[in-house]
Amino acid sequence: MGESERGNATREHILTTASAMFGEAGYRGASLRDIAARCGLTHPGLLYHFPTKAGLLEAVLQRRDEADIRDAGPGATGLEALNNLVEVARHNSKTRGLVELFATLSAEATAPDHPAHAYFVARYERVVGEFSQHFVELQAEGNLREGVDPQAAGRQWVALMDGLQIQWLLDESVDMAGVLDAHLKSLLA
Amino acid sequence: MGESERGNATREHILTTASAMFGEAGYRGASLRDIAARCGLTHPGLLYHFPTKAGLLEAVLQRRDEADIRDAGPGATGLEALNNLVEVARHNSKTRGLVELFATLSAEATAPDHPAHAYFVARYERVVGEFSQHFVELQAEGNLREGVDPQAAGRQWVALMDGLQIQWLLDESVDMAGVLDAHLKSLLA
Repeated sequence: MGESERGNATREHILTTASAMFGEAGYRGASLRDIAARCGLTHPGLLYHFPTKAGLLEAVLQRRDEADIRDAGPGATGLEALNNLVEVARHNSKTRGLVELFATLSAEATAPDHPAHAYFVARYERVVGEFSQHFVELQAEGNLREGVDPQAAGRQWVALMDGLQIQWLLDESVDMAGVLDAHLKSLLA
Repeated sequence: MGESERGNATREHILTTASAMFGEAGYRGASLRDIAARCGLTHPGLLYHFPTKAGLLEAVLQRRDEADIRDAGPGATGLEALNNLVEVARHNSKTRGLVELFATLSAEATAPDHPAHAYFVARYERVVGEFSQHFVELQAEGNLREGVDPQAAGRQWVALMDGLQIQWLLDESVDMAGVLDAHLKSLLA
């Protein structure tokens, strides 16, 4: 392994560990010192890769978004895209740490002075827009039940995914994908 | 004002301040020392009223639940009860601190070792049960659209309320009550 490969492996290890710890303790509850210790690094060793906590957080969030876009099938539209989102919910139930991270952070980051506030404001605007677009496509396919507003349906879908994650984190017998699938079927023509 | 009235007023003042600070910084982020300082009390002065942080949190949550039950109209059933819940969402948009508190805490408290974990597990079980019951009543009134499962509808309603709160906290132009009202109308016969 060359020096830069070793560097990349360390970076990946830090991101995975930080994801888990931010998910457990919240962004404010997990310190860089604790994250370094769990990674088997010194504090300066961690700072070499991520000079600030806010920068580390941004890298963690970006990595998760990239994975989500891969999972959702970037080219899919309409019914196919919405069915893919049901599968994303099913997949999420295998990554509890990341679900905890997003649930805790999205709530914490509603405070305007939180370092991830701008990220989450932009992310929700983008995601609500994307999901609404899938309902517009569903309508164009002739698959959307009459009287359903595609914009409202997109916003509701995002809210349902978020709310179901809280319920599932509190009680793992909650079937996130099943509830979303039933909701989608109730919106079809 | 007698001594016990003064005690009650101080208690109320602490609960209001603690609600706001737990909402801003999360349960883990707000210390008893900071809460005491913002109340104009010494640390021992606060401990006289609330000997532990977990006890203070429980009192804050209980007070909010009592207010919610008052707002929801404790005797209402079926469509009336669900319309009342739309009004609760409208009212919530006037109490940002409490919405922040519940959003942040319900996410933080999904961690099994969080002092409010048992409270939130029990609360969600109760609330999902109550809301599902209102959809059962809606069905008995002949107001529920055919093919809608009352249990799933109750769970979805809770998820929608939670998810919409996050969206509203990030962007106050989001109309929580309007989206819920549209969702309710889409479920009516």
